Amino acid sequence: MPARIIDGTKLAKRIKSDTSARVHALTAEGRRVRLAAIIVGEPAAAEIYTRSQRQRCQEVGIEYQLHSLPPHAKDDDVRSLIRELNQDSEVTGIILQLPLPPDLDTPALQYCIDPYKDVEGVNPSNIGLLFYDNAIIAPCTALAVMEILKEASVEPRGLNAVVVGQGAIAGRPISLFLSQKMATVTSCHIATKDLYSHTRQADLLVVAVGKPGLIRGEHVKPGAIVIDVGINSILRPDGSKTIVGDVDFTSTNEAASIITPVPGGVGPVTVAILLRSAVEAAAKQTATPRRLAV
Amino acid sequence: MPARIIDGTKLAKRIKSDTSARVHALTAEGRRVRLAAIIVGEPAAAEIYTRSQRQRCQEVGIEYQLHSLPPHAKDDDVRSLIRELNQDSEVTGIILQLPLPPDLDTPALQYCIDPYKDVEGVNPSNIGLLFYDNAIIAPCTALAVMEILKEASVEPRGLNAVVVGQGAIAGRPISLFLSQKMATVTSCHIATKDLYSHTRQADLLVVAVGKPGLIRGEHVKPGAIVIDVGINSILRPDGSKTIVGDVDFTSTNEAASIITPVPGGVGPVTVAILLRSAVEAAAKQTATPRRLAV
Repeated sequence: MPARIIDGTKLAKRIKSDTSARVHALTAEGRRVRLAAIIVGEPAAAEIYTRSQRQRCQEVGIEYQLHSLPPHAKDDDVRSLIRELNQDSEVTGIILQLPLPPDLDTPALQYCIDPYKDVEGVNPSNIGLLFYDNAIIAPCTALAVMEILKEASVEPRGLNAVVVGQGAIAGRPISLFLSQKMATVTSCHIATKDLYSHTRQADLLVVAVGKPGLIRGEHVKPGAIVIDVGINSILRPDGSKTIVGDVDFTSTNEAASIITPVPGGVGPVTVAILLRSAVEAAAKQTATPRRLAV
Repeated sequence: MPARIIDGTKLAKRIKSDTSARVHALTAEGRRVRLAAIIVGEPAAAEIYTRSQRQRCQEVGIEYQLHSLPPHAKDDDVRSLIRELNQDSEVTGIILQLPLPPDLDTPALQYCIDPYKDVEGVNPSNIGLLFYDNAIIAPCTALAVMEILKEASVEPRGLNAVVVGQGAIAGRPISLFLSQKMATVTSCHIATKDLYSHTRQADLLVVAVGKPGLIRGEHVKPGAIVIDVGINSILRPDGSKTIVGDVDFTSTNEAASIITPVPGGVGPVTVAILLRSAVEAAAKQTATPRRLAV
């Protein structure tokens, strides 16, 4: 029997609609939700790269401003800009577009972002607070996976969860989140021996590697929940491009009980979660005295 | 054949001796290593509680000052004291003794500690930097486990590691560290179903629960490396007290290839690591321009 397919596009639409309502409620109170994006690179490329981000913000009523720094920008240039945006009370959220040029110190710059404006949840402080079960804002992809599990009525507690891929943006925060939700989490990666002996024991399998076809039906426990975080652009035989995940959908669909497709699964939900985090950040900043202060 | 027993007391002695030499090298340059400990509670109890900490610091030449706040201290009282110590250039390390009274906001107070003075590695920023493989100072118990593995010539890469217990002080940072060292890590806890099906597959088993006798020889894969982080005070039949770990030593010693005893294993190494972190913090603060600045 084929698996239940979670429709990420539909879920994303609902999140966006809720977000839009919250933005309008805030602006009706005279408060604003404004996202500032910092990108280091050629200005023309930056404009193209962030065009859809701007558009999505505008769709839900979030103001968007792009700060483009030249490719040769130094740590201090980025730091100065972040400080300025931290101080600017009109700016309620800050995104530092990754990857930064390799000579910039990414974690040190992420550390500069006001934790209350860090809508992507990448400031080491926000990661650490997540570690302490005290998150202000968490990384978007991990939140998207948790949202999908909620949508599918999956309770992580007590499940054997296997997370394949331990990157800082997706896999590692997902492992942390699932462990806090009391799943028994096995974190696999490039050095894992006999990967499939692990994946075959997973009640819940999350794959975030970036390798098309890494997981096939025979690698999955019958009845498992399979969440595909991979987004890979591949060439079709006719030379056109298409997007696939890390999971071979056709074979896995037959083995799993619940599955997310690519495209139309985790991707659009992650995009919607960023918008939701932006409005939550705005609400938290203005609503209460700050818990965190150095 | 019984396992190789790692002598934590001996390893701790070596770490302390190295640390002492480093403290004296720094003080010879006119720099100081001074640890400030904050404890919230009855002053008399605080004095007793921290007496051995003071003594251990003095043994390696680290200056020690105790700041005792009354049991009814508020978040703001603790925060003011931390800020004062952050600013005090004579203080090179700060310890906030846990547990704090339950009405205090522990992570928010840990967040106030200057990350460069946070010798226990508990500031959420330091946890997050560890997550990004960019730690300044890491939690002591996790460092102690890594030091023991080094002492035993165990290379975590590619091992199936199982960490039982996911507390914020020990188990969770240990899972994170082992994953970064490229072990395949399974994180188990109170909600894990069939715990022993996991422990029996571990090449490396770390137990940090606080439950005497939780792991016995039959729960361990033959030839496994077993690290016992538990410290439990139990009553002997004659009414006297004794310290045991979470691992039943006698039965497990026969199954494992390498094992740490309790007492005399992880405990003394953790204590020595705190002293080492204190001198490393002092060296980092004064030696280089700061990478982290908000």
